[in-house]
Amino acid sequence: MTHTAEIISVGTELLLGNIVNTDAMDISQMLSEIGINVYFHTVVGDNPERLKSAVAIARERADIIITTGGLGPTCDDLTKQTLAEAFGKKLIFDEHEAQEIREYFEKRLRSHQMTDNNFQQAMLPEGCVVFHNDHGTAPGCAFEADGVRVLMLPGPPSECVPMFRSCAMPYLRRLSTLEIVSHNIHIFGLGESYVEDKLRDTMLRLKNPTLAPYAKSGEVRLRVTAMAETDGEAEAMMAPVIAEVRSKLGNCVYGIDTDTLENTVFGLLKQQNLTLAAAESCTGGLLSKRVTDLPGASQVYLGGAVTYAVPSKSAILGVPADLIASHGVVSAEVAAAMARGVRERFGSDLGIGITGIAGPDTDESGLPVGTVYVALSAGTGGAVRSLHLGQGRDRVRTAAVNHALDMVRRYLTGLPVDQWEK
Amino acid sequence: MTHTAEIISVGTELLLGNIVNTDAMDISQMLSEIGINVYFHTVVGDNPERLKSAVAIARERADIIITTGGLGPTCDDLTKQTLAEAFGKKLIFDEHEAQEIREYFEKRLRSHQMTDNNFQQAMLPEGCVVFHNDHGTAPGCAFEADGVRVLMLPGPPSECVPMFRSCAMPYLRRLSTLEIVSHNIHIFGLGESYVEDKLRDTMLRLKNPTLAPYAKSGEVRLRVTAMAETDGEAEAMMAPVIAEVRSKLGNCVYGIDTDTLENTVFGLLKQQNLTLAAAESCTGGLLSKRVTDLPGASQVYLGGAVTYAVPSKSAILGVPADLIASHGVVSAEVAAAMARGVRERFGSDLGIGITGIAGPDTDESGLPVGTVYVALSAGTGGAVRSLHLGQGRDRVRTAAVNHALDMVRRYLTGLPVDQWEK
Repeated sequence: MTHTAEIISVGTELLLGNIVNTDAMDISQMLSEIGINVYFHTVVGDNPERLKSAVAIARERADIIITTGGLGPTCDDLTKQTLAEAFGKKLIFDEHEAQEIREYFEKRLRSHQMTDNNFQQAMLPEGCVVFHNDHGTAPGCAFEADGVRVLMLPGPPSECVPMFRSCAMPYLRRLSTLEIVSHNIHIFGLGESYVEDKLRDTMLRLKNPTLAPYAKSGEVRLRVTAMAETDGEAEAMMAPVIAEVRSKLGNCVYGIDTDTLENTVFGLLKQQNLTLAAAESCTGGLLSKRVTDLPGASQVYLGGAVTYAVPSKSAILGVPADLIASHGVVSAEVAAAMARGVRERFGSDLGIGITGIAGPDTDESGLPVGTVYVALSAGTGGAVRSLHLGQGRDRVRTAAVNHALDMVRRYLTGLPVDQWEK
Repeated sequence: MTHTAEIISVGTELLLGNIVNTDAMDISQMLSEIGINVYFHTVVGDNPERLKSAVAIARERADIIITTGGLGPTCDDLTKQTLAEAFGKKLIFDEHEAQEIREYFEKRLRSHQMTDNNFQQAMLPEGCVVFHNDHGTAPGCAFEADGVRVLMLPGPPSECVPMFRSCAMPYLRRLSTLEIVSHNIHIFGLGESYVEDKLRDTMLRLKNPTLAPYAKSGEVRLRVTAMAETDGEAEAMMAPVIAEVRSKLGNCVYGIDTDTLENTVFGLLKQQNLTLAAAESCTGGLLSKRVTDLPGASQVYLGGAVTYAVPSKSAILGVPADLIASHGVVSAEVAAAMARGVRERFGSDLGIGITGIAGPDTDESGLPVGTVYVALSAGTGGAVRSLHLGQGRDRVRTAAVNHALDMVRRYLTGLPVDQWEK
């Protein structure tokens, strides 16, 4: 039997646009891992009547309802009361969870901040499975009623996501029979409509496995998904599809399930026992930040310099001041010197240099916003990619980092890297 | 008359958890600016039947329906067809928009990537207001039918958000009469339940203006909102509430509507004509990245060093190797030396040093994950904050950067900064 889940996220802050709904994304990802379909997400405010109406709609179109948010200690937190009422369950005080809440505050030496409203969190629906919260005070829970399974999780992503993985996933895994396996095919350097045009016939023809595109911050991805009795069977069904995509898109396919370009680069560096350092100007540390988001990054990433002010390019990286004077700070020559400089100062095998104009305004050079030079330096030589990345500060910065990582990826896999100079 | 909007985001990639729904957040924020209530967000896949059912529900509970996504050139893009059908409108080929699409590809020298499916995007509902897309090919549009206004926008945030601001906002602004004004009160260093306990009576008592809490990545915020005939009247109603919050929470209130700690720090540095540089270890460039997210950051931020590998702390920042050997790389002493070193190397007025263990695993020191030292160095002395930030790599990194910025904020506003040493 196939299950269908609906995620109801509760919180006026979501409807006011104060925060983004990452919980719904993360839970959806995990549900797709275990083959549970998600057809709708609903977001509703801290309003019991509207939450009730959302639940009434959801129970007609899903047999698993997952709520996030509204389990906390404040007077706005009404999810448990509303769901329990909708499914005819009483709330009962859970002494064990109350004790856990007491200990949470004691461990953090914050007993003076522990107010009585915290114990409201220990009121749980009768007969439920309790999901203990290892990262906060509000417990989650699950119960079954009228053929629907209701799971409630706290809103803060740092509590919701670990709880979903460690408590809700095992609870739900038992419900699924057929295996659904997916792979993401990661592409860099081709537009979405170009990719679709090359593969439209394949996409329309395929039913199981399926092939579908999606765009994500300057990259295009394809997802291939198969349903079968076993994982092995599903894999065998997907292999020829992946091969077909590779043959049609060539080396713009940079990885399967690698999640991000930085992941691919991290894996390649580790495998080849090489190290990287980066000198960033317009990207202001974004490359460093993305690479060090990965646990274990210190094995391959020695560090970087954010040389935002012009003099710091000379002081920290040794870029000759006359080179800056003659070519301008946003130039292929300065990018190359930054890459070489950071490689030498940090003693890494590879160095990246990025200089450009992220906007919103241009600088004294008058070059258009989006002009960026990305350089790669290795012991054997180096290359510079000259880019026109359009408007939008975030977009320009993200794309510049993607291009830098793509150059490293190409270098490490033996593909041509722009004009390589020795 | 008060208007109620519902945002329907269309895209299977949202339900698979491949991307997060930032469009709904950004649009909600803009709608709240002009006093349009949002009671629900719905996310639905690229499936005409389910989209139709979501529209049928939405038109019963909202008089403005805003869709995002599904306007592109691929075979999955079915929003226009579905909405037009639901409201009895024909789709008509718009020659002007078709020409714009042609020019979009020509300008980018990508005519060879322009495939016929792109012209599907120029099919628009009869009698609609066209929203031209300055950042992509798919136009948006708005029409009115059966007392409901339907607005359709493309999915990619870099297209959706600018289009909403420049086209949909003027279109919607005419509908709103009463002014709704909000202020966000930003707090650092107090827990959500502590803040709520201090202010619960006020929150429950207030009807107009209202006061409500929300937590955001390690910070607590309060939002005060007033409805009135004029902006001035609304402001006058909110002033005493803001004053009450300030008096109850003291200097943990770091700003009103400043959006982020980095914004506050940026403003203070600019005002006082001071500069900053940062040396980061466990935060890996996150502080640099956050500060340089702000346009104009180069006026106050000279740059930084990401000294991820231990030797780079000496090589780049001049931290004495024997200091590292005797105190350990994660220590108050090394943090202070990093802050001093980066200040001297970059020639900035203030320097930040961050060293710690972001996890998931500890290092050879065996210190618990979440141990972080954050140092501030100024010409007049410096201070180190010793922190235990718990588990979770992202959470630890974010909190460490927040604490660093909070120290700068306190220093620049004359508040006590931990134990200041001359």
